[in-house]
Amino acid sequence: MRDFMKTLDAQCALRKFLCIGLDPVLERIPEGEAPIVFLRRIIDATADIASCYKPNFQFFLGLCLKGINGIGVLEDTMRHIRQVAPAVPVILDGKFGDIGTTNDATIKFVVENQVDAVTLNPYVGPEGLTPFLSRRELGCFILCRTSNKGSDWLQKRPLKDGTPLYEQVAYDVMTSWNAKGNCGLVVGATFLPELAKVRHIVGHMPLLNPGIGTQGAEVGPTVQASQDGRGLGMLLNASSSIIYASREPDYPEAARAEALRLHELIISSRKVIQP
Amino acid sequence: MRDFMKTLDAQCALRKFLCIGLDPVLERIPEGEAPIVFLRRIIDATADIASCYKPNFQFFLGLCLKGINGIGVLEDTMRHIRQVAPAVPVILDGKFGDIGTTNDATIKFVVENQVDAVTLNPYVGPEGLTPFLSRRELGCFILCRTSNKGSDWLQKRPLKDGTPLYEQVAYDVMTSWNAKGNCGLVVGATFLPELAKVRHIVGHMPLLNPGIGTQGAEVGPTVQASQDGRGLGMLLNASSSIIYASREPDYPEAARAEALRLHELIISSRKVIQP
Repeated sequence: MRDFMKTLDAQCALRKFLCIGLDPVLERIPEGEAPIVFLRRIIDATADIASCYKPNFQFFLGLCLKGINGIGVLEDTMRHIRQVAPAVPVILDGKFGDIGTTNDATIKFVVENQVDAVTLNPYVGPEGLTPFLSRRELGCFILCRTSNKGSDWLQKRPLKDGTPLYEQVAYDVMTSWNAKGNCGLVVGATFLPELAKVRHIVGHMPLLNPGIGTQGAEVGPTVQASQDGRGLGMLLNASSSIIYASREPDYPEAARAEALRLHELIISSRKVIQP
Repeated sequence: MRDFMKTLDAQCALRKFLCIGLDPVLERIPEGEAPIVFLRRIIDATADIASCYKPNFQFFLGLCLKGINGIGVLEDTMRHIRQVAPAVPVILDGKFGDIGTTNDATIKFVVENQVDAVTLNPYVGPEGLTPFLSRRELGCFILCRTSNKGSDWLQKRPLKDGTPLYEQVAYDVMTSWNAKGNCGLVVGATFLPELAKVRHIVGHMPLLNPGIGTQGAEVGPTVQASQDGRGLGMLLNASSSIIYASREPDYPEAARAEALRLHELIISSRKVIQP
């Protein structure tokens, strides 16, 4: 396996910060197009813009319910990305959070399909997630502050010294879980003050920010809150707003146009101290 | 869909408290036996002992990596349980914890396959899990204190008033998430004082206790800590120790013998005030 953090650094050096979420939903895919073809064409149309691709595992499982081999579609999608966009890493968004050997099958899938990074749920603690965290080359994005409106319930709860839980998660991931240098955090773009706070805590650690696009977070303020001191370290994710930009035969062009629009908005919002 | 809590109550009234975990691992299934047949025979051999069956989603996905239609195996397993053990509810252990519409595919699977209950990860909060919690008939077991040895990290962290986080989760699930009366909690049998504490907090709420069997927790003390004041409300789970009790052709009998042993140990450990 290649090293995710190095792969991501190379993408950031090319000023690519847009993560494109791949969430196949049969009812939203243009009529007559097979999911496997749909995803390939979306990738073909955006390969030079995307910083990363982020297939969401649940959506591929959803295909299985329609009599489609969703796991096969996911495997094909990852193969296709490596073929047409070999520099673009893949983040498998599974929010994995089981314990010990129950993670074995997931790890096997990750290794066999050369997945570059995963998303992880921190509830079971770092020991339960060791099969992921111990792989130096595997990027591990830990859920810190999720983008849903009710995420306060657990995540903003004050700990003994008043620290909100999500800040403690950020701090612990940085100081302890990240022993292999392979960690990042998922912080929704829907909570900008918290995003800025997490950035302050974690220095240069990569932050994956869902919430722009359909969920309505604005790109400019998200970039301001998420970028590190070098104008790097951020990955802004959009899914539906790109891949379902059109249901007509022009959908690859529509996806490209929306991806390009977001990419340019990100670039123009970066505030970098000029040398 | 039938009502999970009523189905579970009926099982408890029959003094059945053993949850049998179905974790198919190709390498551990007796040679020459297809997973679908293996699981059917385990179910046939234990149908009159099991209080519930608990297929773990990750293990069925694991089959997909071996070129087996794992989702199909899971569907067959659930159909088979309804045929030969119609009174025994199925808890789908997926530790689901995604947000909003990302749960749609899972909900569809649950409905189409008449899943009785699920396990859920609380990190995203109740709003993110509404698609599950809002279904009155669907049992929702929320992860509270997981059985892995490193689960302290987040779960035992003291909140502002000193309450460990897992106790707050138990309290909030009882007082708020459980508006539909469909919630239970997952509390590992590997932490007995905490298990007793959770029981004290939640009254008669069902507790699902992994950790007996392979993970080494003792049945007697677990029953003492987990049972409610009526000697009910507990579900002790064992998986590998039952289904992999033998790798020889006698595996159904071996599974039955181990299930029966655990069942009788549970029954003899109950301490009920006699009328």
